[in-house]
Amino acid sequence: MELPDVSESFARVNYSETDQMGVVYHARYLVWLDIARCEHLRRTGISYADLEQLGLRLVVSELTIRYRQPARYDDLVRVRCWVRECVPRRVVFGYAVDCPARGTLLATATTSMLVLGADFSWSRIPPDVVARLPVSADPVRL
Amino acid sequence: MELPDVSESFARVNYSETDQMGVVYHARYLVWLDIARCEHLRRTGISYADLEQLGLRLVVSELTIRYRQPARYDDLVRVRCWVRECVPRRVVFGYAVDCPARGTLLATATTSMLVLGADFSWSRIPPDVVARLPVSADPVRL
Amino acid sequence: MELPDVSESFARVNYSETDQMGVVYHARYLVWLDIARCEHLRRTGISYADLEQLGLRLVVSELTIRYRQPARYDDLVRVRCWVRECVPRRVVFGYAVDCPARGTLLATATTSMLVLGADFSWSRIPPDVVARLPVSADPVRL
Amino acid sequence: MELPDVSESFARVNYSETDQMGVVYHARYLVWLDIARCEHLRRTGISYADLEQLGLRLVVSELTIRYRQPARYDDLVRVRCWVRECVPRRVVFGYAVDCPARGTLLATATTSMLVLGADFSWSRIPPDVVARLPVSADPVRL
Repeated sequence: MELPDVSESFARVNYSETDQMGVVYHARYLVWLDIARCEHLRRTGISYADLEQLGLRLVVSELTIRYRQPARYDDLVRVRCWVRECVPRRVVFGYAVDCPARGTLLATATTSMLVLGADFSWSRIPPDVVARLPVSADPVRL
Repeated sequence: MELPDVSESFARVNYSETDQMGVVYHARYLVWLDIARCEHLRRTGISYADLEQLGLRLVVSELTIRYRQPARYDDLVRVRCWVRECVPRRVVFGYAVDCPARGTLLATATTSMLVLGADFSWSRIPPDVVARLPVSADPVRL
Repeated sequence: MELPDVSESFARVNYSETDQMGVVYHARYLVWLDIARCEHLRRTGISYADLEQLGLRLVVSELTIRYRQPARYDDLVRVRCWVRECVPRRVVFGYAVDCPARGTLLATATTSMLVLGADFSWSRIPPDVVARLPVSADPVRL
Repeated sequence: MELPDVSESFARVNYSETDQMGVVYHARYLVWLDIARCEHLRRTGISYADLEQLGLRLVVSELTIRYRQPARYDDLVRVRCWVRECVPRRVVFGYAVDCPARGTLLATATTSMLVLGADFSWSRIPPDVVARLPVSADPVRL
């Protein structure tokens, strides 16, 4: 089973994501990042829904994002996602959001996720899931 | 204890609620309606959080909304809310959204809410809560 | 060129769309309807972005929605969309939202759209666009 | 005219802001930060709407946020906001989000804002606005 180190997911910008500046409102990018890391997990054979079934939660504890160029209505944006660090109690994801049709890097971001149990107590990712989340070098400068 | 038949709640339009038409995106109004009916419940002495503690949920089963004039960034919008019908298994709320500073009616709406248990089975509102939700005539034409 | 009367679009439910009932928050469905009618327009050869370039806007003036079953995190939902009525000043769309994997109808809806100019004055859809929006009978009971 | 260095704004958590973990979805905090910096600006006598009238935009170029404790439905959250750095081309805001009723710090954040013109070209804040945005030391450790 091949485990790609960097996954890709795509989102078409819809009207609800724009604001009156005529570009995508900055908070919407966080949803794309969320979708991207769920797709990244899914490709390892363990979906986020599976983790929740196991009583685990990945909770964002820290997020950084640099906005470089605005995304616009109807853009097809791509989010590349990879794991920068993975230990049983914490996973750090990196992200690069771009618009391939315009050849434009839109944003780069990182999220540090804590692993919690269903009652928000500290927990750990199962070792076999850690094993399926290989750490990648950053494909773009963050 | 006085139970006003029509309650009022207020929301300042924030930037995230606008879209690239330069007005409030139509789906955002539904959040204002939600806030308004929660405030309406709160004034009866039973908050929605209290109902959830009792294992009850009010779930939107049907919603109608007429958009009359656009709301704009930084508008202070008022949502009047009242009960149009209340039986143990269902509550129908009416709403009028306006911008008092501009004297403009922005939207009118209704939501029909089903009363469910924590497991989404049919349930009933306690009679003393029903008693605190007097039915009002529509203060504006819907 | 074949013009299907009923179009289909798909959305994977993401985490931001859920609420603490464990199901999709009711206002999120309106974004799926928006995406669906944009895709419906796109398949006629005229995208909504094209209409905006022509100085036209389709604005929701009335919306009705019936929620039948809850949508859940990670569901792949399908939105079927069709035109119920189309005159130069107004287009009425119908929608059926379901989850094919579970065989469940989740919601049905209609939106009545007014055609406005860039300055929110009354306007009309170009006749050739009207011609590409054939009216369909409702494929499900609304 | 007194210009407070640290402003406060309040938001009641509504149902749309929760997710199926039973807490506020992390992206919603960014809207509270946006509301807080608009209120911070308003208290200086220049609202964000005024800046837009002058053809200026403050655009988020970088955002960092640390989530410390979850916010919950119906919490009344407070956002303290202050200016960490202010030069004509850039303003850096700091934020502390807490729940005073529970005595809990929920999150801390910073946003770096670029000053752009209506056409997204580089621009500058008018000197009299800069003068009304005094820089404050961080009231909490970020």
